[in-house]
Amino acid sequence: MTALVAIDWGTTNCRAFRMGAGGDILERRTGALGIMAVKNANFAGALMDLARDWIDVPTAPPVLMCGMIGSAQGWVEAPYLGLPAGAEDIAAHLVLAPDPRRDIHVVPGLRGQGAAGPDVMRGEETQILGTGISDGVLCLPGTHSKWALVEAGRIVRFVTFMTGEVFSLMRRNSILGRLMIDAPHDAPAFARGLVRSQSAGGLLHQLFTVRTAGLLEGLTREAGPSFLSGLIIGHEMAAVKELLAPKAATVVGAGALAQNYAIAMNVAGIDAEFVPGEDAAARGLHLVAKRAGLVN
Amino acid sequence: MTALVAIDWGTTNCRAFRMGAGGDILERRTGALGIMAVKNANFAGALMDLARDWIDVPTAPPVLMCGMIGSAQGWVEAPYLGLPAGAEDIAAHLVLAPDPRRDIHVVPGLRGQGAAGPDVMRGEETQILGTGISDGVLCLPGTHSKWALVEAGRIVRFVTFMTGEVFSLMRRNSILGRLMIDAPHDAPAFARGLVRSQSAGGLLHQLFTVRTAGLLEGLTREAGPSFLSGLIIGHEMAAVKELLAPKAATVVGAGALAQNYAIAMNVAGIDAEFVPGEDAAARGLHLVAKRAGLVN
Repeated sequence: MTALVAIDWGTTNCRAFRMGAGGDILERRTGALGIMAVKNANFAGALMDLARDWIDVPTAPPVLMCGMIGSAQGWVEAPYLGLPAGAEDIAAHLVLAPDPRRDIHVVPGLRGQGAAGPDVMRGEETQILGTGISDGVLCLPGTHSKWALVEAGRIVRFVTFMTGEVFSLMRRNSILGRLMIDAPHDAPAFARGLVRSQSAGGLLHQLFTVRTAGLLEGLTREAGPSFLSGLIIGHEMAAVKELLAPKAATVVGAGALAQNYAIAMNVAGIDAEFVPGEDAAARGLHLVAKRAGLVN
Repeated sequence: MTALVAIDWGTTNCRAFRMGAGGDILERRTGALGIMAVKNANFAGALMDLARDWIDVPTAPPVLMCGMIGSAQGWVEAPYLGLPAGAEDIAAHLVLAPDPRRDIHVVPGLRGQGAAGPDVMRGEETQILGTGISDGVLCLPGTHSKWALVEAGRIVRFVTFMTGEVFSLMRRNSILGRLMIDAPHDAPAFARGLVRSQSAGGLLHQLFTVRTAGLLEGLTREAGPSFLSGLIIGHEMAAVKELLAPKAATVVGAGALAQNYAIAMNVAGIDAEFVPGEDAAARGLHLVAKRAGLVN
């Protein structure tokens, strides 16, 4: 029997989970409709298209959502919650989406004072809680990668880096991209990029050396993307060392990107562990739902 | 009488100067055909379209070109010359374009060992010589801004930063751009960006705070581009201080960008002076032509 319908609704896609009372995932679905693609902001309709058969049933299971669905561009704006924040804090600040037919609960994002200004997350807080790690440093690689310090089950500090987006822009839209072609990951070139990130001159200068490495140092067009990736991720690592100085950290995820992050961490002197990221959001939503009394 | 036809032919445009024996500019023209836009690599044809009436005359004045026209994508590849390099060194390494009807001389670019790898320039070396500054640090702001150390009339060291291109990508193609609209330069926002660049977390983190400054710190959509510009240029200044530690530097140019660079330099503790950049390439080409014996 469905105890919870858990939805991780982000900018570019929507992942839905039908969960049992114990937190087991009974069924999962992925919708292509990220919040930016929902026509006329008809989020209720989009949700029904994806999961009506889970929700419109006599038992009326609770629905809990996290991610950008709770942003100003989403269904309802769930104001950012300050730090420290754990499952109980978040459970105490759920916001109801404006749906006349049923209660749709939305998890607030988090706001912290970062190294250089305010920092925010929406969705990652739920994934972090869902990893079950109650103490340590977590790394969530991605378009905007996040590093979080968790103590006694509460997120006490986090930092965002635009690593993935900067990589993509340099690869796809910059002059550097003209010297590259897509190819399988090249581990030595990635390591070479990591090493280059530790040299002088800062990122704006080092990016130009991706061009000269192609012109003058024999970097092949196939190896270019891996070199660029290593260079940019290496800068993220340098900043993490400066800000959090972790001896070890846990990468949320298991794919190629997570593996590369682990290598970058090792080169930077940070021991890397892994925790599965695939269903972390569902587990986090279940945890919050329990704390909020939505699930027994 | 025309003593020299000087051509600064770059990636996106072509500037031609008809010069007298003393280095005076008698006439100037700008063609829209950057080297990337020349069809079938017919550079001879493009040059004739722009300046046949200067070149195809009985006196047959010498033609000297600089810029990307001497790159592998240009008319003829003029191999990079090592440092230090002044007008005499460059004059001794001119390359002839493959034109059967006349001598077209091309200035080589320069190659240096940068802070993080090899560094290159094509065209800027001629502008630098053309400023007439024989000792000091010069700054050439732009898409790929260059800083050069000149001693006794020779370029002894230089560094490239992708500042302008990174700004443009973040403004036009990134998620940050969605929070901005084009507006007149906002000097306080620019200064705020400069200050932010001096905080912790590195560029990849600080870029994300451009977003949170809009969400949470009242940065307006109009002020966003200036804030972003200050942040990125501030990172260039930090690297320049690390690499060259200049007490003062001369900005080549006089427009709004040069003014902003001067402000950024002042905030970074570098005294700024200006030298006109408009005709520096022409003056530099004349200087090289004299050293090469093309002009008396």
